[in-house]
Amino acid sequence: MGNLKEEALKFHKDYQGKIELKCKVPVRNNQDLTMAYTPGVAEPCLEINKNPEDIYEYTAKGNMVAVVTNGTAVLGLGDIGAGAGLPVMEGKAVLFKAFGGVDAFPICLDTKDIDKIVETVKLMEPGFGGVNLEDIKAPECFEIEEKLKKISNIPIFHDDQHGTAVVSTACIINALKVVNKKFEDITVVVNGAGAAGTAITKLILKMGAKDVILCDSKGAIYKGRPEGMNKYKEEMANITNKNLVKGNLAEVLKGADVFLGVSVANCVTKDMVKSMNRDAIIMAMANPNPEILPKDAIEAGAKVVCTGRSDFPNQVNNVVAFPGIFRGALDVQASDINDEMKMAAAYAIAELVGEDKLNPNYVIPEAFDLRIAPKVAAKVAKAAIDTGVARRKDVTPEMVEEHTRKLLGI
Amino acid sequence: MGNLKEEALKFHKDYQGKIELKCKVPVRNNQDLTMAYTPGVAEPCLEINKNPEDIYEYTAKGNMVAVVTNGTAVLGLGDIGAGAGLPVMEGKAVLFKAFGGVDAFPICLDTKDIDKIVETVKLMEPGFGGVNLEDIKAPECFEIEEKLKKISNIPIFHDDQHGTAVVSTACIINALKVVNKKFEDITVVVNGAGAAGTAITKLILKMGAKDVILCDSKGAIYKGRPEGMNKYKEEMANITNKNLVKGNLAEVLKGADVFLGVSVANCVTKDMVKSMNRDAIIMAMANPNPEILPKDAIEAGAKVVCTGRSDFPNQVNNVVAFPGIFRGALDVQASDINDEMKMAAAYAIAELVGEDKLNPNYVIPEAFDLRIAPKVAAKVAKAAIDTGVARRKDVTPEMVEEHTRKLLGI
Repeated sequence: MGNLKEEALKFHKDYQGKIELKCKVPVRNNQDLTMAYTPGVAEPCLEINKNPEDIYEYTAKGNMVAVVTNGTAVLGLGDIGAGAGLPVMEGKAVLFKAFGGVDAFPICLDTKDIDKIVETVKLMEPGFGGVNLEDIKAPECFEIEEKLKKISNIPIFHDDQHGTAVVSTACIINALKVVNKKFEDITVVVNGAGAAGTAITKLILKMGAKDVILCDSKGAIYKGRPEGMNKYKEEMANITNKNLVKGNLAEVLKGADVFLGVSVANCVTKDMVKSMNRDAIIMAMANPNPEILPKDAIEAGAKVVCTGRSDFPNQVNNVVAFPGIFRGALDVQASDINDEMKMAAAYAIAELVGEDKLNPNYVIPEAFDLRIAPKVAAKVAKAAIDTGVARRKDVTPEMVEEHTRKLLGI
Repeated sequence: MGNLKEEALKFHKDYQGKIELKCKVPVRNNQDLTMAYTPGVAEPCLEINKNPEDIYEYTAKGNMVAVVTNGTAVLGLGDIGAGAGLPVMEGKAVLFKAFGGVDAFPICLDTKDIDKIVETVKLMEPGFGGVNLEDIKAPECFEIEEKLKKISNIPIFHDDQHGTAVVSTACIINALKVVNKKFEDITVVVNGAGAAGTAITKLILKMGAKDVILCDSKGAIYKGRPEGMNKYKEEMANITNKNLVKGNLAEVLKGADVFLGVSVANCVTKDMVKSMNRDAIIMAMANPNPEILPKDAIEAGAKVVCTGRSDFPNQVNNVVAFPGIFRGALDVQASDINDEMKMAAAYAIAELVGEDKLNPNYVIPEAFDLRIAPKVAAKVAKAAIDTGVARRKDVTPEMVEEHTRKLLGI
């Protein structure tokens, strides 16, 4: 890793920022300024003043996403501060543009006060078509998202929660086909009750899973557990673990069909995998070192293994989800990114693998598969239209797909 | 104007936003992501966490300016709202980039609450190297700037105040040479006690003018005036109009050397100009129609006339100031843009005209004069260094000039 460190620092020093602003309009002479600035610019201002929705017609708002963090849960580094999170937010903006044609801008907020973050994001709403919350620690992130969703007219999406949930779900859709099981019949153990684990659990339930057990460092979360609970874990206890299973991860995993880890390296042993049901599905997404190495999991009887790493098969990488999700939401001017849109994204991603190519080592398309964003965007747009959150009535999923291809130059 | 309206609306509709985000780094494969995103990005994050100043080394902060408005005083349109101001803010961002190589990003805040604006801008500080306040109405703009300057570690600059003041001052420096008068000896009447008029008055005083009278719609502002005062006008009454001159604009203008208008169309008559001292200097900056037309002013005896319009000689255009000012401030990581830096900018702009070319119709360089930004940036950087507000000790004015040329490709 010594070499990576030096290289990464040099890379960032050389570029001094991974993003810059670009003028889309010419600025060569006074005539150009007459259009782009005064006096011409007064005209769109007046139109927007008359009809606020026209802001989408005349400005960059409709394609602009704020990537908002307070730096309290940056990567696996923890609470390093808003400023120290900026390299990640710039990286996120790069991914938004490269993979979704979305203009994204980092907003690093120097506060841990939930209400201040909510208020600040709401105050900035006029200039943005959507908000991607990023690397904000749980449980604060839940309250921030919840409050913002209530008061905002633009989609609010916490990628650490929902991006991860969508990609995990896509993997499970395909992995279940490989092992010939159904959501309705499986027992799922989710390890890690932070942002990602909570959102994954909720989406898996939406997908039809009946038996999901969420664990934190104290083991299974169940209704009435006397310690280590908070408002959000109580809520999860109400919708999971119907049989009030108790015990640590090893105990809970016995007989389970799917392990979903968003936890820590090496917390799953071969024996634990052996104790699971036949053809176990292992999603070991701890970064950079997974809960169990794919080789060990397979040896212990797992059928499909996914990790967060690009050097193993089946990488769970949010970049296959959030660019297309926002692309679709922005193109129809969705007021929200709801569960139906997330499920549509998961299905779209899963479908791209193709029945003929599907196998234990290929349940999820690779990050650089160019087909992803156009398909995801189209399906997300369709779900937005179908659920009534799309403001634009004149845009079809086909148009969204075509627009995405055009933006990405494919 | 019908034609301009149609053209400007079509122009804005066609572009759907005048700015976009651009990736400076390649994103072609997993190796690229390893550098720009995980795991490589963790390294600069950790460095910044250890040493917060390193954020300038590894991110776009050092070249990123927030263009902040609440839409309460947009162009001459008044309080049209934060969203309706967005086309202007995007235009401003375009000018920052095209004329100064500065990355600027519009932040439209949907509030008129002074403290909320101050708090929001402060919370966003980690991601920005400077803040350009724009189109915020007086007197709120004074308090917002004052409060932000106290708590911020990056320069706060309200362009409607200080940009206009710098360019007006540059014009007057040269116009006084044309008429062979000195700041110390002249009587200046400033009409308009809003953001621009107040800042112009202060800078003209700094330049050595002893006799400045500031007028609002009720005429001359003087100490003890019984009506139409506020905290900021009281403050101005304390530093101007030593002789307690009273009366309306026509009365006050008698015998004056300079008229500086940031007020309304056609409020100055030929007779009023005739009543001024010989070789009067008229800065008629109301937009789009000046306080008096240049032709009329000249006929009435004025020697130099400046307006805000590009179709008359001597255009007072902020674009000759703010891009270079921010360029210089950013390049030395100035913590402030102080009066010395503003005066340095005014002198730099004035000097570019050249003694040999100076004449009543050429007291200020044209907006598209490519020499401006590098010179202004260098002089502003020097003033920042000399006054101790430059954090970088290793950057010289010559390096700033060279860097500016490079950014602008000249």
